[in-house]
Amino acid sequence: MNKIPVAILGATGLVGQRFITLLANHPWFEIAELAASDNSVGKKYGDAAKWQLPFEIPERLAQMTVLPSDPERVQAPLVFSALPTDIAGELEVAFAKRGAIVSSNASPHRMDADVPLVIPEVNPEHLALAETQKKKYASDGYIICNGNCTTIHLALGLAPLHKRFGLKKVLVTSMQALSGAGYPGVASLDIIDNVVPYIGGEEDKVETETVKFLGRLKGNEGNGGSLRSPVSDLAIEYADIRISAHCNRVATRDGHLETVSVEFEGNGVANKPSAGDIIAAFDEFRGLPQELNLPLAPNRPTVYRREKDRPQVKLDRDAEKGMATIIGRLRECNVLDYKFVLLGHNTLRGAAGATVLNAELLYAQGMLNNVGLSAGRIVG
Amino acid sequence: MNKIPVAILGATGLVGQRFITLLANHPWFEIAELAASDNSVGKKYGDAAKWQLPFEIPERLAQMTVLPSDPERVQAPLVFSALPTDIAGELEVAFAKRGAIVSSNASPHRMDADVPLVIPEVNPEHLALAETQKKKYASDGYIICNGNCTTIHLALGLAPLHKRFGLKKVLVTSMQALSGAGYPGVASLDIIDNVVPYIGGEEDKVETETVKFLGRLKGNEGNGGSLRSPVSDLAIEYADIRISAHCNRVATRDGHLETVSVEFEGNGVANKPSAGDIIAAFDEFRGLPQELNLPLAPNRPTVYRREKDRPQVKLDRDAEKGMATIIGRLRECNVLDYKFVLLGHNTLRGAAGATVLNAELLYAQGMLNNVGLSAGRIVG
Amino acid sequence: MNKIPVAILGATGLVGQRFITLLANHPWFEIAELAASDNSVGKKYGDAAKWQLPFEIPERLAQMTVLPSDPERVQAPLVFSALPTDIAGELEVAFAKRGAIVSSNASPHRMDADVPLVIPEVNPEHLALAETQKKKYASDGYIICNGNCTTIHLALGLAPLHKRFGLKKVLVTSMQALSGAGYPGVASLDIIDNVVPYIGGEEDKVETETVKFLGRLKGNEGNGGSLRSPVSDLAIEYADIRISAHCNRVATRDGHLETVSVEFEGNGVANKPSAGDIIAAFDEFRGLPQELNLPLAPNRPTVYRREKDRPQVKLDRDAEKGMATIIGRLRECNVLDYKFVLLGHNTLRGAAGATVLNAELLYAQGMLNNVGLSAGRIVG
Amino acid sequence: MNKIPVAILGATGLVGQRFITLLANHPWFEIAELAASDNSVGKKYGDAAKWQLPFEIPERLAQMTVLPSDPERVQAPLVFSALPTDIAGELEVAFAKRGAIVSSNASPHRMDADVPLVIPEVNPEHLALAETQKKKYASDGYIICNGNCTTIHLALGLAPLHKRFGLKKVLVTSMQALSGAGYPGVASLDIIDNVVPYIGGEEDKVETETVKFLGRLKGNEGNGGSLRSPVSDLAIEYADIRISAHCNRVATRDGHLETVSVEFEGNGVANKPSAGDIIAAFDEFRGLPQELNLPLAPNRPTVYRREKDRPQVKLDRDAEKGMATIIGRLRECNVLDYKFVLLGHNTLRGAAGATVLNAELLYAQGMLNNVGLSAGRIVG
Repeated sequence: MNKIPVAILGATGLVGQRFITLLANHPWFEIAELAASDNSVGKKYGDAAKWQLPFEIPERLAQMTVLPSDPERVQAPLVFSALPTDIAGELEVAFAKRGAIVSSNASPHRMDADVPLVIPEVNPEHLALAETQKKKYASDGYIICNGNCTTIHLALGLAPLHKRFGLKKVLVTSMQALSGAGYPGVASLDIIDNVVPYIGGEEDKVETETVKFLGRLKGNEGNGGSLRSPVSDLAIEYADIRISAHCNRVATRDGHLETVSVEFEGNGVANKPSAGDIIAAFDEFRGLPQELNLPLAPNRPTVYRREKDRPQVKLDRDAEKGMATIIGRLRECNVLDYKFVLLGHNTLRGAAGATVLNAELLYAQGMLNNVGLSAGRIVG
Repeated sequence: MNKIPVAILGATGLVGQRFITLLANHPWFEIAELAASDNSVGKKYGDAAKWQLPFEIPERLAQMTVLPSDPERVQAPLVFSALPTDIAGELEVAFAKRGAIVSSNASPHRMDADVPLVIPEVNPEHLALAETQKKKYASDGYIICNGNCTTIHLALGLAPLHKRFGLKKVLVTSMQALSGAGYPGVASLDIIDNVVPYIGGEEDKVETETVKFLGRLKGNEGNGGSLRSPVSDLAIEYADIRISAHCNRVATRDGHLETVSVEFEGNGVANKPSAGDIIAAFDEFRGLPQELNLPLAPNRPTVYRREKDRPQVKLDRDAEKGMATIIGRLRECNVLDYKFVLLGHNTLRGAAGATVLNAELLYAQGMLNNVGLSAGRIVG
Repeated sequence: MNKIPVAILGATGLVGQRFITLLANHPWFEIAELAASDNSVGKKYGDAAKWQLPFEIPERLAQMTVLPSDPERVQAPLVFSALPTDIAGELEVAFAKRGAIVSSNASPHRMDADVPLVIPEVNPEHLALAETQKKKYASDGYIICNGNCTTIHLALGLAPLHKRFGLKKVLVTSMQALSGAGYPGVASLDIIDNVVPYIGGEEDKVETETVKFLGRLKGNEGNGGSLRSPVSDLAIEYADIRISAHCNRVATRDGHLETVSVEFEGNGVANKPSAGDIIAAFDEFRGLPQELNLPLAPNRPTVYRREKDRPQVKLDRDAEKGMATIIGRLRECNVLDYKFVLLGHNTLRGAAGATVLNAELLYAQGMLNNVGLSAGRIVG
Repeated sequence: MNKIPVAILGATGLVGQRFITLLANHPWFEIAELAASDNSVGKKYGDAAKWQLPFEIPERLAQMTVLPSDPERVQAPLVFSALPTDIAGELEVAFAKRGAIVSSNASPHRMDADVPLVIPEVNPEHLALAETQKKKYASDGYIICNGNCTTIHLALGLAPLHKRFGLKKVLVTSMQALSGAGYPGVASLDIIDNVVPYIGGEEDKVETETVKFLGRLKGNEGNGGSLRSPVSDLAIEYADIRISAHCNRVATRDGHLETVSVEFEGNGVANKPSAGDIIAAFDEFRGLPQELNLPLAPNRPTVYRREKDRPQVKLDRDAEKGMATIIGRLRECNVLDYKFVLLGHNTLRGAAGATVLNAELLYAQGMLNNVGLSAGRIVG
């Protein structure tokens, strides 16, 4: 089978390195180009990247020359973006305008009204927004985003409950791993024997992205929502859930742990789901990635563990290839209805794995058919 | 001045070692006896204790012979208890019956209806319950408890708000230090690069002790409350606050950090205190220990920090001699009214420091006058 | 092919768990029995073991009932021993007497004159000592040991140099991981923000086992060495190398790092190998496991890395399936001749992996042929 | 008493912050000026410094405006330098030329032939080199250096042995704390669950500085040594000791631990000191700081601990105000004569404390008398 050539932007960073490992032997995609910042351009990737992962860089990629993150220089029809926040906004639009499909882990466009912010098991129908972008950019290109690393796992953990029972309020406290801050990221003196109860911008991302993930795609039924994008009638109606987040950094390498309290819709106690109902919802949750058997899809996107002291970061972050959200300790909450713990791998399902899974969804849905061909770059 | 001779039960453990350092040069108390478990009895304290603190054991105490935790063998009129949970219940009663005043850090009697569970700045009036015990035990002895290490800082942080504005709901997530589990406590393999989202019994302690701390002492006004102790008309009416806790262990040495969301009494937004009101409440909070100038009292029991990323465990746990609760990051909460972060030293104000401060309060209130003398053991 | 049924003694501990994962899908061996201490006996393995590894226990094994470590109850002809030191000595002999071949990770018999202490790449010829045991025990059974976790990597790293150039003096400082102390092992309060410069008995093991590994098998050529075992003429002549070890515990999960200074035989500078010679020795070193293509054999038993700051614990411990010794930073030493750094995974090649590789060597050498059949227990 | 006004260069960094805490209430010195890099200049110190220490910045200093590190702008007669390596060389000379006495923690001038590299207990007589500099700079100013943080503790630990018995060879492996790399320094992802066996330039500093510390001041006795500085007859003859160092970074906050093997002068075993002799040398070692009772001097510069597992980083680094070298585990070495462990606080006696103690020595020796007065800046 011909593979689709892909480029990685921001290839030398932590998320870029995860892209490398996830795409090095991918059945549908082939890494054709690696791009990074000026001080890496022209170097061999093996020399440019300060490699952080406990396995070797594939030799073919180590020898690849790093390109600038320039849409004129990077030609692949499908682009994975791990660009830094300050330049991602403008650059990703430039790539979309030249016809590339950009599957992005960067934050600037996540909350744009016409950008699908997607977890394939949760809201694949939001992909329809891509059409709005195509019109705007007058090209075959568009941007699709995954969420913040803490938010993806929260939204994936909440989705089975919201879809089945309806959620009204969510209070979450995160204990986030160091890799979430990139490299060099957190100084060791700031975190050894410490917890830092502040991560710039994180709480806002959790509170806003979650309701977009759990929101509804609306057409032009006269809803007049302010989210409507200018050149289309499609829009996302945010879920009506009040979310409050406390975000903290702790001294773990990978894996964000979150304590979550939730309140369901419906006033009467009689309407509340039982603990058994809730666990069943976690156990039974499946989505399109499982149905389509996407290469990176976990067998179970949400895994509920029965032990009294799980999930734990070191024991559970790698479950289901790091692509699942692991939940445990469901119990009644004195303030809201129920409380539980959830955990997920922040650079796999929480970042690079999410970006790749989004691209796999595009592929399986036929949304990459023309672009790849029109660009005339299918790898033999 | 003659000092009151005191004994330390459970002297070799982590909390016992903190007692040693807090009492070694105390202006009112003098360590007269050290007691511990059978495998330490008869040894010199310096040989029996696996010393964990970064300063030397005072030589006089290192040479002291360890006694059994037996009320017939330990004679001091004032006893500090760091006894293990499984034996503290029975032994502390035995000490009270032989006339000792027991200031305890152990948990078994904390929720007893006739045992004062006291934070001197918060509820010193609860000490009145001691009279009930004296009658019951037909002795001059009684037990006074401090709370759980997480609870003390939560209650101390909430007290200024509850006293001034009235609280209705509290949702708290703790990130607790290793020393809270004693020694050897948590295995290193269980916590390096990990968070454990479970601490046996902890959440229940936080949820129940807090409402006792913030409760009201009631006399015999016909309230018929079930808390009424059998031989007295005094009782504690628990505060009417719904509290829900998520407790986690993280890889810090000392210092429990807690994220807290609170809802105030009163339905209307008009009645809610402003952020400025709340910070003023923290800033201005003082209590009896400050008024009486108790030796171990912090100047400010609650310290509000204005930086965006404080309190932090390593930077703030030792503030005010480890005897204050440090608060920061006050902001509005989407689910309850406000949210903030609080931090406190778990083995100082959260354990040994609390036990000693309670005893200082007894002393300054004249509640040790007779006991010490009648026991005829004032040290010259 | 029929697989040989094997038993694991000490199956619930850290090394036992590694045995499980290494043997669960082994091409030659099949786990038939799991044995552990009294408080696990009769339980299902999944309930008895506090599982420490970041992947699930295979379901078949989780359901297996734990047996006592009793040679009458455990019937497998090949036994992997991760028994605790205090009981391994006697029990392993009992197993050998009833005809079992015991591949042991325990220390008591390592220095016995008639017990082969083997690293398959280094001294496979020492296996000949097994015959001496068979005579002594009047059975087909015998014990074969791997070394201490620090020693194996030191000996494997020194072997290419000693075989090619001859070594005279070795000075080594280890920085050892927490898993080397088992579970619960090191208390977290003893190692967070700390280094412990003492590991009981470790330095002696490094200094003595290394010269046995690098020693020569001698027959009855009238050497009269005191190592001669009572019922045979075979003996190991220890290598004439002076070794001095400093052993330290640091806060890493897995992977022992060692700084090593060495002096070669021969007085003249002219005779010393060059740095290039030494690196070539590391690069080119191969042994029987590579020749026989043993399932667990690394492609390269010693891997020399050229980077200025490698090997590093987190980056290199898992290289070659955790079965290699990784070396780097070769440079001249002002006191001895050369110095370098070496690293190895302590519970894989340093423990369970070594025990399994030893058994694979026995199998490939035909030393398991009769035992398995005579016991009539070949699994279908 | 009038205090001498002092300036701190590089005041915002980790070592600068230690200067602040050591000098804030100094009996002889008063902080008059704080200087730092361009992005701090003009700010209040409290805003410019990212404060790392667990106690507050003194308010007077927090309000002080940061100056540029310019000898024309910084007027104090005594200057403490924590300047970055790349600019310290030139700037310190400029300060000396304008008449300032520079007590420096920076490395560029440490090995200069006319710069005293001093540990007050070890080689105070090297201060005589200052005269050579005064001539060269035609000013009252000069530079005096303390050593590298690892080297100071090694040299202080070796000094009692070298002075009493004579040393010939030293092999040392360090396990160094994170604060030694400054702030932000080591990235947390590089050190959590890791050891890095490489610190740029460190091994060379240990090997060269140590022999200067332990060297002899020589006059013009016709020795013709190449160390002789151009404008003077004074020179340091390096100690004739072969030193080899392996330097590693581990995940501790403060405190460098070193394993050390030593060989003494003299060929015959009869001449070797006994273990008792060596421990007596550590116990009895005292120097000028103790004799002069310098404010920051430890009571005992070298402390030998008898426990089998000490010194430990967390337990011993703060002994003697962090100004001593703690030694333990003396035992025979199979390769050299003896081996032991030593530990010291790297930012106190290993950096800022050393710089301040050097200045205290100058003061007590009368070497600050004229400079301070001539500069007309004695603080009232």
